[in-house]
This record gives sequence, C-alpha cells and structure tokens, in this order.
Amino acid sequence: MRNCKISGYGYYLPKNIVTFGNQIRYRASGKENQLFMATNAAKKAMKNARLKPENIDLIIAASAVGIQPIPCTASLIHEQIMNDYNIPAMDINTTCTSFITALDIASYLIAAGTYKNILIVSSELASPGLPKDKKEIYELFSDGAAAIVLSHTNDTKRGVIASKQCTWSESAHATEIVGGLTGLNATKMNNKNRDKYYFKMEGLDILRACTRKLPKMFDDFKKETNLSLDDVDLVIPHQASKALPLIMKKLGVPEEKYVNRVDNFGNQVSVSVPFMLCKMLEEGKIHTSDKVMLCGTAAGLTSNILLMEI
Amino acid sequence: MRNCKISGYGYYLPKNIVTFGNQIRYRASGKENQLFMATNAAKKAMKNARLKPENIDLIIAASAVGIQPIPCTASLIHEQIMNDYNIPAMDINTTCTSFITALDIASYLIAAGTYKNILIVSSELASPGLPKDKKEIYELFSDGAAAIVLSHTNDTKRGVIASKQCTWSESAHATEIVGGLTGLNATKMNNKNRDKYYFKMEGLDILRACTRKLPKMFDDFKKETNLSLDDVDLVIPHQASKALPLIMKKLGVPEEKYVNRVDNFGNQVSVSVPFMLCKMLEEGKIHTSDKVMLCGTAAGLTSNILLMEI
Repeated sequence: MRNCKISGYGYYLPKNIVTFGNQIRYRASGKENQLFMATNAAKKAMKNARLKPENIDLIIAASAVGIQPIPCTASLIHEQIMNDYNIPAMDINTTCTSFITALDIASYLIAAGTYKNILIVSSELASPGLPKDKKEIYELFSDGAAAIVLSHTNDTKRGVIASKQCTWSESAHATEIVGGLTGLNATKMNNKNRDKYYFKMEGLDILRACTRKLPKMFDDFKKETNLSLDDVDLVIPHQASKALPLIMKKLGVPEEKYVNRVDNFGNQVSVSVPFMLCKMLEEGKIHTSDKVMLCGTAAGLTSNILLMEI
Repeated sequence: MRNCKISGYGYYLPKNIVTFGNQIRYRASGKENQLFMATNAAKKAMKNARLKPENIDLIIAASAVGIQPIPCTASLIHEQIMNDYNIPAMDINTTCTSFITALDIASYLIAAGTYKNILIVSSELASPGLPKDKKEIYELFSDGAAAIVLSHTNDTKRGVIASKQCTWSESAHATEIVGGLTGLNATKMNNKNRDKYYFKMEGLDILRACTRKLPKMFDDFKKETNLSLDDVDLVIPHQASKALPLIMKKLGVPEEKYVNRVDNFGNQVSVSVPFMLCKMLEEGKIHTSDKVMLCGTAAGLTSNILLMEI
C-alpha cells in the first residue's frame, strides 16, 4: 500500500458537440487547444483541492501526444499556471494509459515523503489528427482534459493498493501516428505521405490481442495481490470503444461494476480514465474507503491495472 | 538513500564524424536512426550487465524527442529487443535531463521492491532538426544513444542519496521545437512555416537564466542534504555547450572534479549525461563507493541534480 489520496479533481470538455447517430463526441474548436484544456482542468483540480499553485510540489503531464516536441508538455502547462514558482515538471507517457502510469509513479513519490501534492494532468487534442475517411476512427474520439491532485495522507488505509503494467510490443504498430518526430520528420511531410501523419488504428487486431492477453494479466493481478473482484467497488476502464462490454465480459467484470460512457463521450485517449474518475467523484458514485480499479489498454500495446482505496 | 546499483551500461556513437575547427561531432547516417541507436545501446547495457531481455522487468525510454507521436518510444525499443516478453514500457521526459529524471524515478521503484532490473535508454537523432543557417546550434549537437541497467542491491550504502529538480517555465520558450505535435500539427507544415519545425535555442538567454537560477538551487541542494562538494568524487554535467566551465565556476565546482568533453562529443541532448556516465565507467574513472553527481539543465527550463553512490 502506497499511502496517498485524491485531494482535488477537475476536467474540461470542449464546447462543441458533434453526434454520429446516438454517439456524442466533443471536439475542440477556436481557442480550445491542448494547452488551454490542460490549463483549465489543472486550475479546477487545484481549486477543488483548495490548493494554490505554490502548494503543488510536482506537476506531471500524462498525455499520449504532446503539444511540442520540445519542451515537455508539463513545462508548457507550468508556464500557464505556476510560472512564479520553480515546481518541477515532467511528462510520463504510456499513450492511452499515461494517467494510470503517472498516478502509480506519483504514489511512490508521495509514499516516500518526497512530495506532498502532485498535480497530474492529461489533455488530448485528438480530432485534428483523425483521418476523415476512416469512419470507425473519426467517429470514435473526443477531445478534452482532466486533472487530479494526489496528496499525502496520514490515513494508512488510503492509497494505491497494487498496480501492474504489461507491454506486448508485437502489437506496437496496431495503433500509431508514424510522422511528426524523428522516425519521419514533420519537415518531410508532403502530399504523398500525408496520411502517415494521421492517427492509424487497427481496431480488430487490437481487440483480438486484448481478448488473448488481458484475461491472463487480470488473473495474474488477482493472484499476485490476493484480491478478487468482490474486493473492488468500481472499475473505471479506458473508454476504448463500443467493444468495452465484450472485454469486460471476458475479464468477468459484471455490468453494474464498471463505467461505460462510450456513447456519451467516446474515446478521449489518455483523458478517458481521469475524466471518468472525475465524473464518478462529481456524481457521488465514489466514496471514501471505496476500492476503485483503474485499467485500460493503450498503444504499445500496453495494459495497466491500478487498484486504489479512495 | 534509495538502494540500487548500475549493473550494466552501453552506448552507441554514429560512425560519421564531422569537425568544426577543433570541435568533433557525431552525426547519424544511413540506417543509424533513433531506434537503431537506442536498440544498440540497450543491447550492450544488457550484455554488460550479463542479463537477458527476460531478466529486465521495466524499460524506460528517456529522450527529449520521441520516434513517433504514438506509441511511446519505449514500446518501439521493446519491439526490437524484448518482444517475446510482456515487460512494461514507459517514457519519461524532462528534455535534456530525461535520463536523470528516469534514473531518479527508477530508484524509487527498485528501492520499493517493485522491480529488480530497470533498463533506461536515452537516444537522440538531433541532427535532421538542426537549422543549417544557425552556426552556434548546427555546430554544437551530436547524435547518439546510451543505456544503463539499474538493479536491486542488498548493499545499503549504494544507490541514490538525494535528488532535486526545479523547473522555471519563464524560460519555457528559450529552447524549443514548436511544430510536429498538437501545438502546430505536422500536416500544417509548408514552405512559409517550415522553420518552426526545426530546433530553436536562445543560447544567451539560457546562459543568463542558468547563472541567475542554478547557484541558489545548488546551494539549496547542499543545505537540504547536508552535503558539500568535498563529499562528491565526480560531477557529470550535461554537456550543454562550451560555456560549461563558466557554469561550473559559478557553482564552485573545481575543474578537476567535473567532466567536460564538449570539444570531443558536443551536446547529445538527453544522451550527454548517460553517455558520459558510461564513458567514465568504461575509462575506470568511477569506482564502487564513489559518489557521483549527475546534473544539468534542460529545455523547460528544467534543472536536475542527482547524487548517487556507485
């Protein structure tokens, strides 16, 4: 158990809503860029925690895609909300599960006594990178941002109980954006290779890999931690796609135990998990001493599970 | 003290050497892309540690710039060297000091008993992003990769003694690559804005910020840890520029106590610190029980200090 508590949370949803049948998606417009959304969510989380920027002692940006190749995204958020202070800033990235990884790492830093209040921010501006000709991708994703403050607590019952990450790189290219960094420089973009700079996702391949790999990982986690699903009050999975119920069924998670708002919000990349965490806290669906499981799969192919007593 | 030890190290230098007067620089060519160099250094580090891929239980990629926007760089390295195993992969980024931050985080994970052997890889292909018309930038940087395996130890004297990071985002735009990710999409690149996709560095602004900020940070670190420079056997600073002696003088580090190979290798971005660490180990300049200080400044503006007993 790594003692810590969520002392504040906040999120930002773009104003512009688009619908595809019964599917509601949020698409950033105007000034709503990745930094604007991140800053907004971060400020709300600090306000909700009743903390001022100077009370934060580390900021972690946990997004799949950054704002600039240099500097790291956390520095750019830092500039907007805490530039009077020398608070350390870093990025942690495991694509769609970046928030879970960042929360996990942050729990070590707080439990060790190094930091008292860590601001974790996920923000994604996915929409400009979506290929318009690929309906199953274009109609799935939403933009947005979500943040929490993870804080020190003297309550020895609260905190991260256990966590596990696996990466199966045989599926490393099932989800990718090839161009923009050193593998294929932005300056090499032309009309012939333009599609390589857009998001690509082999949905069926990922689904197959997930149904093959996740049940064993889930079982291993339960064995390693001596926990069963009965010990878990709520599962907050990454809102990957409409196939979420299929995966949850494979893992034996009953319908009433997990959050599925894919119809209402779509896949917000790294933001899905923290946004749903914020939503559940806001809606009063999570209470102190509840055991909440955050989980999800990400490009890589990476999967994370983290169990936390709130 | 977070107990851990460096059980292996390895590096890769590009075959192609260019000189600017007495300044030697390494420039990747042919198949020497970021992934190739990373893979090469990682394999050498594992071999040097006498460990096989299956003995590694976490891989951290710690580079300033990634290979692809999605997935994270660690997954792509994973695919090359350990794709038979479900070893977790993540990226940690504080630009030029990414390796120091990753080593710091890894020391928590090892000290907590979560992992036994963590492979940390830094790799940079800076040269294609350098502006040819800016001599002071174009002639400063080198490409390359370096890796270490950080391992569990029962020796209670070895490990990370103390670390400190500060970020001063008032200088967030003194070093940057603006275009390629969501702030300015790669697909928006044209002949008019092409320069925004190249590396930009306001060398004098950074030097001024460093001389203003670093002495206090350095003093704070010494006070907080009750350490003096007499306790340190070797300082390995980021090889930022030829102004390194000026900064070291400001910090009171005598010439014989720090590594300066800027003339021979230039600034390798995040690779400078781990490469010099590898070099010093290889040259027998670091011995067991030596106290080594890794430090440096990075875009952000971020500065890291980490003191380790080898």
